[in-house]
Amino acid sequence: MTKEDSNRILLAHGGGGRLMEQLIRQTILPRLGDQGGQLKDSADLELDSSRICFTTDSYVVKPLFFSGGDIGKLAVCGTINDLAVAGSKPIAIALSLIIETGFEIALLEKILDSAAQAARQNGVKIVTGDTKTVEAGAADGLYINTAGVGIRCYDTKLGFDKIADGDKIIISGTIGDHGMTIMSQREGIKFETPLVSDCGSLWPLTDQLLTNCRGIKFMRDPTRGGLAATLNEIAEAANLSIDINEADIPVNPTVQAAADMLGFDVLNIANEGKVVIVVSPDKAQQCLSVCKKHQMGKDASIIGEVHRAEQALVEMKTRIGGARIVQMPYGTELPRIC
Amino acid sequence: MTKEDSNRILLAHGGGGRLMEQLIRQTILPRLGDQGGQLKDSADLELDSSRICFTTDSYVVKPLFFSGGDIGKLAVCGTINDLAVAGSKPIAIALSLIIETGFEIALLEKILDSAAQAARQNGVKIVTGDTKTVEAGAADGLYINTAGVGIRCYDTKLGFDKIADGDKIIISGTIGDHGMTIMSQREGIKFETPLVSDCGSLWPLTDQLLTNCRGIKFMRDPTRGGLAATLNEIAEAANLSIDINEADIPVNPTVQAAADMLGFDVLNIANEGKVVIVVSPDKAQQCLSVCKKHQMGKDASIIGEVHRAEQALVEMKTRIGGARIVQMPYGTELPRIC
Repeated sequence: MTKEDSNRILLAHGGGGRLMEQLIRQTILPRLGDQGGQLKDSADLELDSSRICFTTDSYVVKPLFFSGGDIGKLAVCGTINDLAVAGSKPIAIALSLIIETGFEIALLEKILDSAAQAARQNGVKIVTGDTKTVEAGAADGLYINTAGVGIRCYDTKLGFDKIADGDKIIISGTIGDHGMTIMSQREGIKFETPLVSDCGSLWPLTDQLLTNCRGIKFMRDPTRGGLAATLNEIAEAANLSIDINEADIPVNPTVQAAADMLGFDVLNIANEGKVVIVVSPDKAQQCLSVCKKHQMGKDASIIGEVHRAEQALVEMKTRIGGARIVQMPYGTELPRIC
Repeated sequence: MTKEDSNRILLAHGGGGRLMEQLIRQTILPRLGDQGGQLKDSADLELDSSRICFTTDSYVVKPLFFSGGDIGKLAVCGTINDLAVAGSKPIAIALSLIIETGFEIALLEKILDSAAQAARQNGVKIVTGDTKTVEAGAADGLYINTAGVGIRCYDTKLGFDKIADGDKIIISGTIGDHGMTIMSQREGIKFETPLVSDCGSLWPLTDQLLTNCRGIKFMRDPTRGGLAATLNEIAEAANLSIDINEADIPVNPTVQAAADMLGFDVLNIANEGKVVIVVSPDKAQQCLSVCKKHQMGKDASIIGEVHRAEQALVEMKTRIGGARIVQMPYGTELPRIC
């Protein structure tokens, strides 16, 4: 092995032998390991409840490093967010790597540090993992899968079936930041005010919300497909219509400029640190003020409401007074955003 | 979209929009969906215990279809096995797909059917999932990640720390079948007696063992790195030596022929349906007979024992009466075996 080789991932790092053990012991364990320094094939957990929430997501974001985060932070926060918006407290994460031969170990270390930091900041442990290697060209650098286990420790029951006529829709902040950051970076476009992904953990905010607010019916993080996809999913599943006001939807002006320039509808753009909340009308203001007190929800806004209608549609009152149907995006716009 | 396109995965299938919803609703849900036909971002589970086991594995096996299984069966059984050998009862699986653009939907369907069947046969539910798409050439067809949750419902406590001087080592059947099947298929080598992977679930066997045998100290499925890696891990972690007898290790003759022809040591070759059991000497015969009654353990054999020594080594008495150290494989031999 030449010196150059020793700085890079080899196929042999996934072989289950001495070299994989070294990678795990020297590179992965010091960063992700549990307090005991262990990261076994499986982890035994003693939870405070037998009512758990279980989720998984693979991450194929391109580029691996972006303004506001990287694939490591994204993978951990994304899985935390899936648990959080389902009304759970995130407890444990399993992290699995598919690494291409030739990938720089220094980059892997940065990514693992960033995953570990995101987990630590949320009181979540990375308890088990897996490492696979593939030939050069067979994984575009690195893919990460994170699976997560949380416990359902709140009284509030969430679900599409809880949503009723008159419920208000809240978004926890500006939309489109993650997707437009990734796309602008990929296209090599720079703005005076730099774009920054909103990639971050929603759990501290959802914890505040579920602890201090009654009346929350449903939460969802509008990732791929953006706000448009999430609202359409809600309308369809609840069989109710949703009316939103464009003027009430917070959008960072640079994000809007980037979307206009690249020809995207900001409603369709992925977010990685935002939550859509459906809440009963009498609790909407309280819920909004809980959001606004929190860093992750400081730009929160009530953007519309749910109502009975013949067809379950999402309709938007535009800034200039018109109205348009917000459709479920078809799906072609933004590859490899998360 | 041309007709040809409609039979293949597009980047847009991962976009979070209508097309992804269609793929999930038409292709994935009918195969993997829970009884309710749901496969959400996260799954709420009511377990019988708050003592859980949590694991993850990514699968990058090449080719995707092989004699005895495919990546779908392998992914589900592999995760079941990780839970089973840790002394848990597998309950739920999260299945995540990374699919390359252009991948045939018919092949995806076959793979999902096979994953679903493996889950069903083991009483395990696939409860949540994720679908990502990447450009042609960025994932070599398809990668699957499975994460699993099991409950710890047996009295026996397993661990390296339970292993003691005099304990016996059992292997549940012939070694090297999976790895040699994959390698022969990849090299295009055919034998009169065809090679078949041992890819399968160990859970029914470990359930029998943990229910009916006392004295089991440790179990591990010898996957990547084969029996050599597993025995070396045990010796190192328990700080004890292991002596094995080559003559007692069951090997399918065709597997041995393939290994000899391709220049592999069968001890280093991956298995996907075998378990190494460390058991106290007084219970070893009972444990062996429980194995032998079961289809997955019919060729089980006591292959050696653990003993105190100055250095924690694995030593093998060869068929011709010599002795050799069985080293931890370095790691280069078999890429993309699982």
